[in-house]
Amino acid sequence: MNRPHNLTSPPFRLLKPNNCVLWQGGTLLPRAAETLTHLRNLGKQLLFVTNNSTKSRTAYREKLQGLGIPCGVEEIFCSAYSSAIYISRVLQLQRDKKVYVIGESGIEEELAAEGIAYFSDGSGDITPEDYDSFGPDEGVGVVLCGLDHAISYRKLARAYQYLRNPGTVFLATNVDSTFPTHGKLFPGAGAVSAPLTYMTGRTPVSLGKPSQAMMDAIEGVLKFDRKRACMVGDRLDTDIRFGIEGGLGGTLAVLTGVSTEEEILKEGATVLPDVYLDRLCDILG
Amino acid sequence: MNRPHNLTSPPFRLLKPNNCVLWQGGTLLPRAAETLTHLRNLGKQLLFVTNNSTKSRTAYREKLQGLGIPCGVEEIFCSAYSSAIYISRVLQLQRDKKVYVIGESGIEEELAAEGIAYFSDGSGDITPEDYDSFGPDEGVGVVLCGLDHAISYRKLARAYQYLRNPGTVFLATNVDSTFPTHGKLFPGAGAVSAPLTYMTGRTPVSLGKPSQAMMDAIEGVLKFDRKRACMVGDRLDTDIRFGIEGGLGGTLAVLTGVSTEEEILKEGATVLPDVYLDRLCDILG
Repeated sequence: MNRPHNLTSPPFRLLKPNNCVLWQGGTLLPRAAETLTHLRNLGKQLLFVTNNSTKSRTAYREKLQGLGIPCGVEEIFCSAYSSAIYISRVLQLQRDKKVYVIGESGIEEELAAEGIAYFSDGSGDITPEDYDSFGPDEGVGVVLCGLDHAISYRKLARAYQYLRNPGTVFLATNVDSTFPTHGKLFPGAGAVSAPLTYMTGRTPVSLGKPSQAMMDAIEGVLKFDRKRACMVGDRLDTDIRFGIEGGLGGTLAVLTGVSTEEEILKEGATVLPDVYLDRLCDILG
Repeated sequence: MNRPHNLTSPPFRLLKPNNCVLWQGGTLLPRAAETLTHLRNLGKQLLFVTNNSTKSRTAYREKLQGLGIPCGVEEIFCSAYSSAIYISRVLQLQRDKKVYVIGESGIEEELAAEGIAYFSDGSGDITPEDYDSFGPDEGVGVVLCGLDHAISYRKLARAYQYLRNPGTVFLATNVDSTFPTHGKLFPGAGAVSAPLTYMTGRTPVSLGKPSQAMMDAIEGVLKFDRKRACMVGDRLDTDIRFGIEGGLGGTLAVLTGVSTEEEILKEGATVLPDVYLDRLCDILG
């Protein structure tokens, strides 16, 4: 059994609430809920941090509650929310500027909640009128891309016209190349912004792990002492890197997801957690 | 007036039949048809080479004839045809293997004409059944991407599963980032394959200019003496580079399209035509 080597006792934990830390394939991992209750009873503050942009915080809370994890909206930090916070509080987008969104309802709900003007296109092919009407628009201050199961030529063509203006900010909820579901990998949010990067030569600012723009957004909402926070996650290259580059007091990897013990123990590995556990519930001892 | 400096008299010319060499915005350039007739009368063989993959050779011939340029199907070399030739004659794809196509009718017509088995998806969102059924398929030997105005998440998700098998060949009709139409730029075929490159880390072999795979495909069909051929085009980075890297006897740039005289004369320019003319008809003197 793997025991933590260096586990400090931070009052604040960043957790990644996906199928690799708390659940797998729709089923809660053993004693996961009990572990969270234990941490809460110790007075630890929890924050569930996820790159998934398709759900708003409210929708995520429902998902967590459906799995048997009670939590409040303020404990959830999804990349759609991260993007909205970044636009309103870091970029401080002017009130007369709009955001053009390629993405799903989670993004639109979070932008609306922050009072940000946005628009998007439904499904549908590009039309002869679009070829004439699509063009630069000074009223569009940001193009924001997230995972979009209805990505289309029309959406890409429109976004491209806006991004040709170097003054238009290019954001992505995250740039994950793939999205794990149904036991396989499917195109992630990064695959949605990839055509725009290829066309414009511009790389979007990512509002998901491991980008520190997400950490900045968290800090824009929630004041906390980074040195007393611990990032918990299953992926070295996103979760653990996010915690290390954010200067958090600690990082904890769990082996119920993507990264393996072999990777952690490999000679020459560059991104390493302070500690790792087989499963989150091993915190209980 | 610009005069050719070094114009050899090759019997064979590669021409790019788009809106920048022969026509602009649907109107034939002055004396363009007359120039082609003049070249034919001198015994020159013509080949119209285009990266546009949405039309088959037959459809292209109709377009050229509609503009007043009589030509035969065998004089047209579009990237859809180039791809079909490459698959059948260079790759020599086994008869029991299929090609999965993301693209339009031009590609399907050319594959069918070469007797290559292929399949593609129509428009439509990804379904719950797709998540279960999409996966690797040993029967798919090639994924071929071209410009597709109905690009979808479903198509990308399916292609990605095939490309995770390193034995599946990844081809693109061309990797142009943009496609000029209606006086603006819109997403090109390269924007269609970009998500797959981002997801897999694999770069497709391009069957369009300036890729020499296209020159190989031309040579697979048409025996000709490269040293007695001249590439004519309006873009230094695609057309002229295609001719130079293919070791053709000459390259001729015309200034009716993308590249300018300023670019050609710029100190330090690396891709330069042997000669250039204001317009193609200046060949007539």
